[in-house]
Amino acid sequence: METTQKLVEIRKKMTASGIDAYFIPMTDPHMGEYVPDRWKTIQWLTGFTGSAGNVLITKDFAGLWTDSRYFLQAEDQLENSGFELVKLKIPHTPEYIDWLEETLDKGASLAFDGEVVSTGISNMFSDRLAPVGIKINSEVDLYSELWVNRPKMPLGMIYEHDVEYAGLTRTEKIEQIREEMRQEGVGYHVLTSLDDIAWTFNIRGRDVNYSPLVIAYAVVSLKDTWLFINVDKIPELLGNKLLYDKVKILDYDWVYEFLKSIKVGSTVFLSQTSVNTRLYNSVVTVCRIRDGVSIPTSLKSIKNPVELGHIEKLMVKDGVALSRFFYWLEQNIEKERITELSASGKLEDFRAEQDNFMGPSFATIAGYKDHGAIIHYEPNLKTDVALEPDGLFLLDSGGQYLDGTTDTTRTVSLGNPTMEEKRDFTLVLKGTIQLAMTRFPRGTKGYQIEPFARRALWDYGMNYGHGTGHGVGFFLNVHEGPQTIGSSASGSRDIPLEPGMLISDEPGIYKEGKYGIRTENLVVVERSEETEFGVFNRFKTVTLCYIDTQLIDTDLFLPAEKDWLNEYHKRVFSEISPFLNRKERKWLKKKTLPV
Amino acid sequence: METTQKLVEIRKKMTASGIDAYFIPMTDPHMGEYVPDRWKTIQWLTGFTGSAGNVLITKDFAGLWTDSRYFLQAEDQLENSGFELVKLKIPHTPEYIDWLEETLDKGASLAFDGEVVSTGISNMFSDRLAPVGIKINSEVDLYSELWVNRPKMPLGMIYEHDVEYAGLTRTEKIEQIREEMRQEGVGYHVLTSLDDIAWTFNIRGRDVNYSPLVIAYAVVSLKDTWLFINVDKIPELLGNKLLYDKVKILDYDWVYEFLKSIKVGSTVFLSQTSVNTRLYNSVVTVCRIRDGVSIPTSLKSIKNPVELGHIEKLMVKDGVALSRFFYWLEQNIEKERITELSASGKLEDFRAEQDNFMGPSFATIAGYKDHGAIIHYEPNLKTDVALEPDGLFLLDSGGQYLDGTTDTTRTVSLGNPTMEEKRDFTLVLKGTIQLAMTRFPRGTKGYQIEPFARRALWDYGMNYGHGTGHGVGFFLNVHEGPQTIGSSASGSRDIPLEPGMLISDEPGIYKEGKYGIRTENLVVVERSEETEFGVFNRFKTVTLCYIDTQLIDTDLFLPAEKDWLNEYHKRVFSEISPFLNRKERKWLKKKTLPV
Repeated sequence: METTQKLVEIRKKMTASGIDAYFIPMTDPHMGEYVPDRWKTIQWLTGFTGSAGNVLITKDFAGLWTDSRYFLQAEDQLENSGFELVKLKIPHTPEYIDWLEETLDKGASLAFDGEVVSTGISNMFSDRLAPVGIKINSEVDLYSELWVNRPKMPLGMIYEHDVEYAGLTRTEKIEQIREEMRQEGVGYHVLTSLDDIAWTFNIRGRDVNYSPLVIAYAVVSLKDTWLFINVDKIPELLGNKLLYDKVKILDYDWVYEFLKSIKVGSTVFLSQTSVNTRLYNSVVTVCRIRDGVSIPTSLKSIKNPVELGHIEKLMVKDGVALSRFFYWLEQNIEKERITELSASGKLEDFRAEQDNFMGPSFATIAGYKDHGAIIHYEPNLKTDVALEPDGLFLLDSGGQYLDGTTDTTRTVSLGNPTMEEKRDFTLVLKGTIQLAMTRFPRGTKGYQIEPFARRALWDYGMNYGHGTGHGVGFFLNVHEGPQTIGSSASGSRDIPLEPGMLISDEPGIYKEGKYGIRTENLVVVERSEETEFGVFNRFKTVTLCYIDTQLIDTDLFLPAEKDWLNEYHKRVFSEISPFLNRKERKWLKKKTLPV
Repeated sequence: METTQKLVEIRKKMTASGIDAYFIPMTDPHMGEYVPDRWKTIQWLTGFTGSAGNVLITKDFAGLWTDSRYFLQAEDQLENSGFELVKLKIPHTPEYIDWLEETLDKGASLAFDGEVVSTGISNMFSDRLAPVGIKINSEVDLYSELWVNRPKMPLGMIYEHDVEYAGLTRTEKIEQIREEMRQEGVGYHVLTSLDDIAWTFNIRGRDVNYSPLVIAYAVVSLKDTWLFINVDKIPELLGNKLLYDKVKILDYDWVYEFLKSIKVGSTVFLSQTSVNTRLYNSVVTVCRIRDGVSIPTSLKSIKNPVELGHIEKLMVKDGVALSRFFYWLEQNIEKERITELSASGKLEDFRAEQDNFMGPSFATIAGYKDHGAIIHYEPNLKTDVALEPDGLFLLDSGGQYLDGTTDTTRTVSLGNPTMEEKRDFTLVLKGTIQLAMTRFPRGTKGYQIEPFARRALWDYGMNYGHGTGHGVGFFLNVHEGPQTIGSSASGSRDIPLEPGMLISDEPGIYKEGKYGIRTENLVVVERSEETEFGVFNRFKTVTLCYIDTQLIDTDLFLPAEKDWLNEYHKRVFSEISPFLNRKERKWLKKKTLPV
């Protein structure tokens, strides 16, 4: 079906059902970061392939709201689709609700498919539109019938994430969850985030790009545990183990009926920002709701000692892969054609040589020169360029391993570093180091230390438009909450940084048309000391990869920063070099010489 | 009447009216920081003279909730009063509401006098207690009838704050307020904070300790302005000027009836945290309420150019007084008996020599040795001690002048500085300096830069338990919102630091039984520069008083910190010395030598 024809058909259905506005978000029933093809409704309907957007259709308007990253792409892809690009003023805000409030008349009706709309967004619709007399129907799917060849539910087999890596058995984890539930006075906990479920049951799968997730729901009561999943995806041995561990397995689609059957008056804990509206409505009719950060999200944010042990070793493996890659790049840049894309592929090859490698943890950002200034740049066949022995190359990549998840950014000079590049690189690096060196009282939240990463740039009238740190999963999502190191203090970001949390430290600077610079390490929060003023925590930098000293202007360094870098480089060399060949080792020695 | 008898009488009245719990806060109808004697109900009833506390009375319990600053004092003062001390776990939180929720049965009734309870607190009562079936009556005054010789409403005459100081006439200010009201779509603005009213009308008075305030209410509509005040307090000339400026003067008590008479359906802007419940209820019956930071509060937080000009000159005067005081102290400490109290008096004498001095801006904190560790220490006849040529002396003081308000803390060594004192002093000073040197993007809030003031202490496992900066009025309250530099981001603190704001920079360290150290300067936010990354702001330190270099361990200083201090001392000497005599000048030269 032509794109414009799909729009015509949807409008016909709207007229038939008396719907004035129809809303389609870019989310799936689990509100994950990477949406499986089955739920790429906006792409099917409009042709737009960006990762953020929302669609509204009325009788005489059809629009896609997206942010500035995608303005050019959307204009291109929406041409002749019948959809207009609506430019978001502020990224990630529901400005389409403002539009609805201004556009719809009293008595008009808005509809959407509640299975793919989060309860948080539904509530915003209700809060804003119901008072002005707009009717809302959250149970209208106008697209499935029209979607010929819609991708099926992913059918990959799941597998066990061994306790040797996970550190705790699923029985132990479920008991931890129940302990929290008892303390909170909660009878049922509904789990809908796929990483919560994978963590809780020590299972992994292949249903989502970049993250080893399994499409499923789960419910934990004080006595029982239910996993809602397509049973065909469970290998027999694992199925038996789950049964042995008293996990009741029910079909994926049964979750809605199951929730309606929970004893009237029970207290049910769920997270409104990640629970879809259909699911929420199934619960709310019979139960009291407790809203908050889900218990597995809180529990897994603090890595257990087994996980922390793996992370240390993992960082050596990942560091070896990165070192080999950068060595290879330096040796071959003048010998063969290397592009952003081929370099990304080569880096994946080096990671694949390491034990337990399962794939990249996100789409590699390989930005040469001006491409580095595009914060979410991901090279494709259209944009790909060859690397030359000149200018800056920003490489942000990570791996999924059975023993953890990595995320590292390095910016290297491929040749002829300029004064401006050196100054900017050094200021960014001062930020990475200053944050890494921070010691802070227990209870400190990410936003309270973030300025340490920005200060050197601020001093020179510079800044960057993204957060400084995100949590990282353990062989799970590379972006994992609830902790962040950001500049805002709203919502779940108001979470203290606690020992065992794994988090990124990644300030940057982006100069349009010129270059981008970012230096990103992962750090683990650990206890520092207890004094008469209380308990203090600090970070341990765990990522092991040299930092390009050619780009450092040591005059801008404080003595403590210089010491930090030299200590770090000593550690990088001593940990990584045993796994390198003679030539690589010699090269790394040079790369890690004291400044 | 005996204290216990008062309690008996109140309980009789409770029984007669069917009241199960009676609440008395330590606030007045205007929710100011310094409560006039007329509203010191808790002191009259219980004998407790502390500055923070709340009272609850039931049939079989009478308690005073206060924070750890006052535990010893309250235990002492409440003895045989019939009131028990209830220790707050977290200062400034309404833990008495938890107690009520736990103690009162369904159907019980809570009463209070809404004229002295803020709408914010009333709402907390309603939100927490109404759902559990407790009835709330906000119109019950059980104490006035019993209060023999209750202090009268202050009757001091008001006076004009000349436009030469204020920078804008009242007509111009009212027009600014109306401009904001039009933009907000508001018909009436109710002003209840005394500093808002004093600022708006360019009037000052003597009704409140330490702040030149006048007890009054005001209402501004898009066309008219009403001032509710005891007319006997207005000198004839000023009264004529107010009438000429179209200010309608009505009696103070008429505000409640007036508010009830506002046209039904009007939109009324007020600030729930500072409006008392009786007043709020007078409005809410007929109007739509818009809640927020009041417009005068926002407007006056940004000092106008005339005010800023005065502040620069004022700081010279105040610095001269401080310099003379410290010179006198050094010359006389071994010659005569000087105590915390007599030193405070002497400092006030030096300030009184300066033009336009009107009185201290708060009770001087003069803490010698271990007294310095008590954050809100205010010497009295019982605690006063003599200063000796040994140990640390913390002095936090300020003046009210027609041309502005000051607030300065200096900690000096009176002799034999120890290594620990020097280290701690230097770490605190690094905080003062680091915050003062900060440059930050437009839109940055106080909590986003506060960590710069704490970092040096954190590095040594130390910290302090108060905020780092508060706004300061212009010949108004020494603590003035809405901006702060604190560690929390909640509520009105989420306010960007904008050019023209005057704010304190005052980290500290407090070692119980040993000493307290704080170095406080006032800083003004000013524009720094505009780059491709946006507009940047910075601070200008305006307080001019030497910092005790005997206490500095320069090894702990970064080069930029040393440069800052030497530049600052150069400025202090050049600005202050012309107003000193030869001996004082020579002494200040030494005090301000480069480190």
